[in-house]
This record gives sequence, C-alpha cells and structure tokens, in this order.
Amino acid sequence: MLSLWVGFGKLMGSTQVNELGEIETPILLTSTLSVPRVADALMDYMLSLPGNEDVQSVNPLVAETNDGYLNDIRGRHITREDVLAAIKNAKNGTVDEGSVGAGTGTVAFGFKGGIGTASRKLPSGLGGSTVGVLVQSNFGGILTINGAPVGRELGQYYLKEQLGLTNSPGNRNTTSQARNPSEADGSIIMVIATDAPVDARNLRRMAARAMMGLAKTGSAGTNGSGDYAIAFSTSIDVRIRISANPVDRNTARNLKSLPNDAMSPLFLAVIEATEEAIYNSLFRANTISGRGRTVDALPLERTFEILRKHGALKR
Amino acid sequence: MLSLWVGFGKLMGSTQVNELGEIETPILLTSTLSVPRVADALMDYMLSLPGNEDVQSVNPLVAETNDGYLNDIRGRHITREDVLAAIKNAKNGTVDEGSVGAGTGTVAFGFKGGIGTASRKLPSGLGGSTVGVLVQSNFGGILTINGAPVGRELGQYYLKEQLGLTNSPGNRNTTSQARNPSEADGSIIMVIATDAPVDARNLRRMAARAMMGLAKTGSAGTNGSGDYAIAFSTSIDVRIRISANPVDRNTARNLKSLPNDAMSPLFLAVIEATEEAIYNSLFRANTISGRGRTVDALPLERTFEILRKHGALKR
Amino acid sequence: MLSLWVGFGKLMGSTQVNELGEIETPILLTSTLSVPRVADALMDYMLSLPGNEDVQSVNPLVAETNDGYLNDIRGRHITREDVLAAIKNAKNGTVDEGSVGAGTGTVAFGFKGGIGTASRKLPSGLGGSTVGVLVQSNFGGILTINGAPVGRELGQYYLKEQLGLTNSPGNRNTTSQARNPSEADGSIIMVIATDAPVDARNLRRMAARAMMGLAKTGSAGTNGSGDYAIAFSTSIDVRIRISANPVDRNTARNLKSLPNDAMSPLFLAVIEATEEAIYNSLFRANTISGRGRTVDALPLERTFEILRKHGALKR
Amino acid sequence: MLSLWVGFGKLMGSTQVNELGEIETPILLTSTLSVPRVADALMDYMLSLPGNEDVQSVNPLVAETNDGYLNDIRGRHITREDVLAAIKNAKNGTVDEGSVGAGTGTVAFGFKGGIGTASRKLPSGLGGSTVGVLVQSNFGGILTINGAPVGRELGQYYLKEQLGLTNSPGNRNTTSQARNPSEADGSIIMVIATDAPVDARNLRRMAARAMMGLAKTGSAGTNGSGDYAIAFSTSIDVRIRISANPVDRNTARNLKSLPNDAMSPLFLAVIEATEEAIYNSLFRANTISGRGRTVDALPLERTFEILRKHGALKR
Repeated sequence: MLSLWVGFGKLMGSTQVNELGEIETPILLTSTLSVPRVADALMDYMLSLPGNEDVQSVNPLVAETNDGYLNDIRGRHITREDVLAAIKNAKNGTVDEGSVGAGTGTVAFGFKGGIGTASRKLPSGLGGSTVGVLVQSNFGGILTINGAPVGRELGQYYLKEQLGLTNSPGNRNTTSQARNPSEADGSIIMVIATDAPVDARNLRRMAARAMMGLAKTGSAGTNGSGDYAIAFSTSIDVRIRISANPVDRNTARNLKSLPNDAMSPLFLAVIEATEEAIYNSLFRANTISGRGRTVDALPLERTFEILRKHGALKR
Repeated sequence: MLSLWVGFGKLMGSTQVNELGEIETPILLTSTLSVPRVADALMDYMLSLPGNEDVQSVNPLVAETNDGYLNDIRGRHITREDVLAAIKNAKNGTVDEGSVGAGTGTVAFGFKGGIGTASRKLPSGLGGSTVGVLVQSNFGGILTINGAPVGRELGQYYLKEQLGLTNSPGNRNTTSQARNPSEADGSIIMVIATDAPVDARNLRRMAARAMMGLAKTGSAGTNGSGDYAIAFSTSIDVRIRISANPVDRNTARNLKSLPNDAMSPLFLAVIEATEEAIYNSLFRANTISGRGRTVDALPLERTFEILRKHGALKR
Repeated sequence: MLSLWVGFGKLMGSTQVNELGEIETPILLTSTLSVPRVADALMDYMLSLPGNEDVQSVNPLVAETNDGYLNDIRGRHITREDVLAAIKNAKNGTVDEGSVGAGTGTVAFGFKGGIGTASRKLPSGLGGSTVGVLVQSNFGGILTINGAPVGRELGQYYLKEQLGLTNSPGNRNTTSQARNPSEADGSIIMVIATDAPVDARNLRRMAARAMMGLAKTGSAGTNGSGDYAIAFSTSIDVRIRISANPVDRNTARNLKSLPNDAMSPLFLAVIEATEEAIYNSLFRANTISGRGRTVDALPLERTFEILRKHGALKR
Repeated sequence: MLSLWVGFGKLMGSTQVNELGEIETPILLTSTLSVPRVADALMDYMLSLPGNEDVQSVNPLVAETNDGYLNDIRGRHITREDVLAAIKNAKNGTVDEGSVGAGTGTVAFGFKGGIGTASRKLPSGLGGSTVGVLVQSNFGGILTINGAPVGRELGQYYLKEQLGLTNSPGNRNTTSQARNPSEADGSIIMVIATDAPVDARNLRRMAARAMMGLAKTGSAGTNGSGDYAIAFSTSIDVRIRISANPVDRNTARNLKSLPNDAMSPLFLAVIEATEEAIYNSLFRANTISGRGRTVDALPLERTFEILRKHGALKR
C-alpha cells in the first residue's frame, strides 16, 4: 500500500512515507497534545501483531488538529485502551461522521466541525475506480457551501478590521488565551483512499488536489493552519508485497499503475469528495459544550434556506 | 526584492529563486515554446543595463502557458524586439487585461482567457499594505464565479463520461491533435506582489495560498496543469541592498519583516485577489480567432444573469 | 530561535519547523520505538513550565536512530523520569560523547557509534561566529577518516557481492532478523547550532551541507537511512520575541540576518564540524554488549597507525 | 524514460520533470548565459523530428555552469548549429572528457575542470545493472582524491582568513569582477543514467546520493553553488510507452521496477561513480587560456606522487 502526503503543518510519520512511499500502520487521528500517547499505543498494536514478534521499527502515522477550545486538551485524556479499541472496532461500511472520535471537539468556520466523509466513483469508461476522502475539520474562514455564502449570511465571518485583533493571540504555544471559535485559525486533516492502482508520485499529486477541495469551502488558509492531506491506494497492484524470500526483494517487481494521462478524473474526484466531506463534517456534527463553552452545530434549516436562495440545492 | 514560488509545472528560473530568495530580472510571461527566445531577449536587456557591463550571470524568470489552440505556437513569433518593447513600455497605473500579451491566445474554462489582475488593501489596523495579483489564465474546469455555477449553466463543462475521452489526447508533446477548448487541461501563472515587508519563507507561504484562490474559480487541477505562483515583496525593508563595499556583504543586515502571526490577513488577500484576477481575465477578454478556430469571450450579459439568479452579485 | 531541517527519514515535529521556521521545544534524541514516550514526557515538561499554564499546543522535536541490534528496543525502556532528568541536567560546557544517551546502543560503520560533537569558529574577519554540530551516529558504509581508508584496512567493509545478501533482510518493520553490525543500513541525526544571525532559509541551506560532512566519512546512504539534519540559530537577532502586547505581533520586526554572500564560510564550517563530530562519536565510544551481542569500539591504536600510514595525521 | 532531479540551483525544465516523472528531450549542458539559445535550438530539433509535426509542447532540459572566468560568456557564442551538431553527433562508446563541450571553460578546485564520466556495474547477484555518471565540474573547495589532500599539497586552497575576501565579490549578477579561479564558488551538473528499472521516486533518491559523491571530492558547497543532479533510467520496463490508441492511455500499465530494498547497491554505485567522474573531469582536462587568463590542468605527476604518499593509489 503506497501513501503520500502534502501539507503545511505536521503529521507524525509523514516524512518517511514521502521518502519510502510506504505506510506501515493504520492512520490515526487525534487531538494535538495526544499525538505521542496515541502513537505509543499504535506501536503497542503493531508490535503485538502475530508475525511481528521481531519487528524493531515502526513508523506510526498520527495526525492531529487542535481541539483545545472545547476539550481539556492539556489533560491528554485519550488512553491506550481508547486507541486499541478504535483499531479493533474499525469496520467496513458506513463511517460515523460529525462530533465523533477526534472530531468531537473540533470547530470549523465557527460552527461545530468534526469527521466527514464522501466519495466519488469514476464511470466505467474511466476505469470505474473509487476515491474516498475522510476529513477532520477544525479550521477558520467563511463557510461557502456549493458556492453559497452560508457563513456570511449566518453571521459567522470576520470583519477585516477584526481579523488582526482576533488573530493576534493565536501564537501557537505561548498564548494565554484559549482559541475562540470566532477566530480564523486551525487545521484540517484530509485522508484520501483509492482502489485505483496509483503509484507514489501520483498519490502525492492526488493529495495536493485535496487542498483545492478545501479551498472551495471557504478556508482562509491562516497562519496557524497545519492542513495535511495523505493519499494511499488499496490496489493490490501497487501493494508492496513482502516476499518470504529475502533474495526476491532485490528483484524488480511487476506493478500495474496508472499513467499520468489517466490522473485527471481522479484529481477531480479528490477535489469534489474533499469539498463534500467537509460539508458532511458540519452537517453531521452536533452542538457540543466543553470547558464552559458551547459551539453550535450548523443550523440546518437556515442553511438549506440559504442554499435554496442561492440556487445551490438541486431542488 | 525577495521572491518565492510554489507550483506543479515549470517556470524558468524558479529553482534558483527558491534557493537564494532573490529575483534578478523582471518576470516575463509568454507562450510555452517561446520561453527560450524571451529569456534570451531578457538576458540582452539585463546585460545591457548601465552598471551591468561586467555581469556574468543572469537568472531570467520566464513563465508560460500553452496557447497552441489559437496561436501558431510552433512559429515562436515573439521577437527580441517584442520583449524589449514590453520591458521598455512597462508603466505604472492601470494594467491591460484580457486578450493581451501572453494572454492573447489563452483559453480558460472553455472561454477566452487572458491576463487579469486584482488587489486587496489591508485596513490600516492590519498594516495597510497592499497585495496585487496578476494572472495568465489558460486552464480547464467548470467556471464558478463568486460561487455561482456559470460554466455549468452556460454549457461549458464536461460530462464525466466524456472526461476520459477528451482528456486522453492531451499528452504533452506527443499528441497529434491540437488542444480543444472543451478539454480540461492547461495551466495558470499567478504573480503576487506586495509592499508588505515579507521574508522569503512567508512569501512562499503567500504563493501557496494563490492555489486556494485558483481552486475557488473551478479549476480542475488536471494532469497537464503546470500551475505556478510566484510572490515577491517590493518593500525596501526586505530588499537586498548590494553594498558598494564587498566587506559589508559579509555582515548582518538589518531587515524588517512581518512575523508569522501577521500573515493571515495577507494570506486571505492573496486568496481573494487571485480569485478576482482570474474572473477579470475572463471578463476583459475578447473573442479571438486563430488557426481556423474561434474561442468566444465569456458572454457577459448571460453571466450577470446567472450571477444575479444565484445571488452572487451585490445587486 | 529559528530552525530548519533537511533529510530523508523522520524527525517528529520537523514539518512544522520547516513551515513556520520556529522551534518550540528542546531537541531530544532517542531510540526509534521510544519516540512517542519521549515526546510525551517533553510535552509534560513544556506544559509545566511557569507561564505556560494555558498553552494548548506544543510541537515536540524528537529525533531517533534504531539501536535494536544492541538494545531491547521493543522494551521502550526510556521513562518519563529519564527524559525530565535529561532536560534538567542539561548544562553548558563539555558534552558527553560516545556510548551515552541515545548513542548508547548505536553502531556506525560496523564499530560502536554514539554521540559526537565538534565545532568551528570563524575568524573575526568573517564575523567570528561559531558553528557547533552534535551527531548521533548509527549507519553503515566504509569508514574513512580524514581520507584514510580505516574501515577497509580494519576489515569492516562489505564485499560488493555480499551487499545484496546482507542488505536484503533490512526491510524496516517486517524483518525477523535483528540488524547485524556488518550490515550497511541505518541513520544519523545531525544537529547544527550557530550563534550567527541566520534566517530560516539559510539555516535550511546550512542543514543541507551537513549531508556533505556525512558523505566524507564514508556513509553509504543506504535505503534504510533516515538521515536528518536540523539547524538553528541562537542569535538574539533572529529570535522570535513574543511580545506581551498582541497588537505588536502584527507589526514588522527588526531582524538582523546574514546575506547569502556571507554564508559560504558557515557552510564550510558545517561540513567540517559534521565530519569531525562523526569521528568523535566513534573515537569516544566504548565497546558495548547487549542482547547477547558485542559491538567493538574503534581500535584507536590501530586506527592511528592507519592514519599515520596514509598521512592523515599531522604528526 | 523516467527522470528525477535534486539540487540547489537551476536546471531549465527540472520542475516539470519532478512533477511528471518524464523527460521529453535530450539533456544538454552549456554555459550559464547560453541556456536560452541552447534551449531554443533543442526545441528546433524536437519540433522537427519525424512524427512530431503537430507537437505543441516541449520541456527542454538544459543545465549550466558558469564558465565566465575563461569564456567570453556574455558573447553567448554557442549557435543553433552547434547544438544541432552536438545532438546529431552523439554516439555510443567512449565519452570525450576534460576540456570539451560545456566543460571547455570550467574550473574546479582552482584547476581546469570539465566533463568527466565513470560507471559502476553491479555484480550479477545484485541484478547486474549499470550506473553511469557524467559531470560538468565547475566549483570550488579543496581537492581531495581518494582521500588524499591533493589540493592542499598543491597549494590550491583557501586560507580561512582569505575566504571572506575572496568570496565576497562573488555576488551572482552584480559584481564587476570576473570570477577568479582561486575563488571557491561555482556549481556542478551531475547526470546519472542507469539501465536498472527504477521508478521516479527512487530515481530522485539516486540523484540525492550524487551529492554524497560530490562531497567526497572536497566541494565546499558554497553559496553560489547551483549543484544539480538528474537521474534517469533507460530500462524499457519503466519507459512510458505512448500508445497509438488514446483509450489505452487511461488504463493501468504494467511496469517492472525495483523495490526500495534493492536500492542500496545502486545508491552506492551513484556515490562512487560520481566521485570518480569528478576526478576524471580533472585528470582529462587540459590547461586552457581565455580572456587573458590561464587555468592550469591538474599536474598529473605531482598528483600521483601525492596519491602514492598517502596510500591512495593501489600501487
């Protein structure tokens, strides 16, 4: 399974993935200050897998956004058991969205953000493969849905005169003020999966296109944004099969991967699925309170009204 | 003057700019196959400047998009005299937009593209600096203006079933078919200027945000896109002053540059100005014919209707 | 304090450093599988610092090499107390070298590696600043000291016919065989400090030159090498001073940094100090046994003989 | 044919190669100010090839070093005919080395540099493939050959106190002083070819290792170094075969490429061949005079004496 990333911020393990084009572990999402504990539990899991008794190196992939406005982030409450349970309970089928998992305490566009997912299936004439995107939304900007200025009409935006003042205390680890949901700062993690046989170089190009889907939702790309995209293929054709025979490892493998010319539909699929996954993270989130604060979910009825008014709903 | 770029394609001279954080020449925009001749003329210009009599190195910055659908690109018709005249006639004030210069033969979203420009001025409380963006638009996707699905309503978009077929002949230098304006492929050059004192690292971050403005217009980020953004500051505070005394060059310079915390408003300005500059490149372009083909300008009246219908015009 | 890195492998926290040009924590070095626990303890330390009571984000910088040949790496024996003690006991003055700290179990060129350090002071005519390098050596190749083929003469090298066989079991997390000291694989961490006022872009260029010092020692740059260099300046002139007044954060800072033209002597200092630091890591290491294996220290007397024979010692 | 680069300076066309993993033209080497004219002639060649009658895009790959100390670089004397003749006369077999082609006027380590080449053939047990390196040497430092301090013993090195003074006039395009051979500045181009089936990501890793071979020769990695390495594979297994049928371009191709685990011997081959190619560029160069200056070839007899004295020759 190949995997590549692109981004501005931090994603533990990402640099080795870029160098070697391989992912060695599940990709876990969590809260900023919980990354080390989650990574340590992920190591426990990897080291304890049957057949890994003598494994001496693991490159844990753990991404984060900062949920400190609603969450007691300094408490680092995610336990080893939480991590192992999350891995154990991972299953096929419908993905939980909204205020769940690492998305429980996140804020996006001043509304309650969270986990969202969406996918695109290419027509059979284009290969019929699928692109799925899962996001953890926790960033600022003015929400635009399918082109409609939802954030502006709902009053969740920043007067330019305010921007400097609200933004200035946002210095990452020195501020004495918690992040306010009306501030523009924050990050998003975007995980892109495809069953198309895509090699490492083109997976990285797919990851770069996730930024374009993000932009369409109204992200302000602020200074504090540590936005990350990581893309991987589940195709057996690009999977690095570990031979039982060390000698075989030095011989060329037959891989089957798509040429550059076939990438445009997959790029468009990434853009569209990322945009939609972000909307879903908002549509499925609940109002959440924490640390004496409350962040409201996107008001769906009013949102639909705005979308209709702007011709941004089919009907 | 510092300058940094980010992008997917090619911009002659960009790698040295990234390494040294300096630009040595004007930035020229042209047609793909004319890059060498334009660069050679730019060298003529630089070598002939008073005081440069002994200069032995020049890093010409020349960006391109491919206008081969309308232009006899293989003819490489841009002459040394054209280049020198363009530099000589550069002036302050209103910038020509639309089907001018390197934008004469470009196509964007299936309409006539070209040169566009826009700017944002920060409020005085945020420093009052200005960000200006100039684009050369020549790429595919479905045009969205201020969120309104203009391309879709005007019938300039790609059925997904068609995408593979229209895209497949787009291989860069081997196809025997000219680029069709209904194809999604192509590139954009985005030049970002600011008078804010921004250092090389943060100029590069500004350039990265131009991609977000591009995404908002509906760019499909296709395989053939060699999209590029280059950002520079005109502030005397970050200008590299060449001392007359070589000894002085080894001593630290006093520079004045903005901290990371001050960048968010400038990032937002880049996103907004890039988006608007692309729209302007379409709004100001004329219908152009060449090589027996015609590419229509965006039909303004119908476009305004669509914008009004979607609430994308103030009035 | 600015900091930049360059490298092939992984260094937790490095991507944010590259994006923001800032380091927020001490740089800790450890064993591969202990990175999460060390990072978590480093968070404890940072969160507990006076004045950090409300800090909600920390970007811990933790680098690693794999000491699994001698160390029970899966045991992850480094405790929170070890980390806090290391930070607490950090002091000015002579740096412990050899088989200490994260270097206790490392192997370099088939000999016992470890921690090494060296520095260069520029002459006053070039600014008089200092460059210090600290390495954690744990990699393969054929040791060359000051040009003399020490590894070859001591029989610690790889016949080319053997290279494939010895290298093949080195797959990072799937092999069932522990790393053998006669294998070429492994990594090095190189930390470069200077008191010269160098900005982020040029610090990154300094880090790149550390690879050149590494190459001169005979490193084979093998597939498994996750070599990393991180450079920072301690100069108050480039230090990001956090203003007590948030408004000030949006205004340009006066920084004093060296121009490109002044960098060559610092680049050479990095190359030389890195090379020497690697030698010191070997010269100061002791023979170490662990997991039923023993890795011998470089035999100093024989090494000096070889150096003399090749004219690689002054006298 | 795949190709990837890594470097600090400029190589026209390199960014698209990195993005698309493809090279479209021969790689030409020339003098800094001649790059545009050489690129234009290369376009002539490409556009005139049978079957390319309708080609509308070419990404010319042209690398350069600055030979202005000996060459009337501002004269840009390389003509279209020179370029076309160079391409036409390219042939298999022994490669001309030394003061030939783009190496005619170059200076390395204060001696006459030029074109050099070397190769390594892996043993059959490691696949038996070949790595060839061709360099254009034009940079500073203190020459070390096979570990022996040749430059130092021949008096071609820089006292540290002098370094600042000699280096300071080296500002790239503003200095009024020609580059002196005793200055440390300058660049090298390293072209790496292999018949091993290596994909784009691993070709880039091979290119990175060329920097390690460069370091072993004593390069000082100065500020003005625009060192570049570009690697490509000639294997039919990774060649991008352009199908006559556009529909086929959207389907996955069967490629055969080496896994990461097989790369270490190829990496070592790059290091060794690059080092040797640089030596060859010096050993084969002649003393050359130009612009009233003379740069002496490396004195071979004295060099051999030094090598013998330091045990750096087999016999």
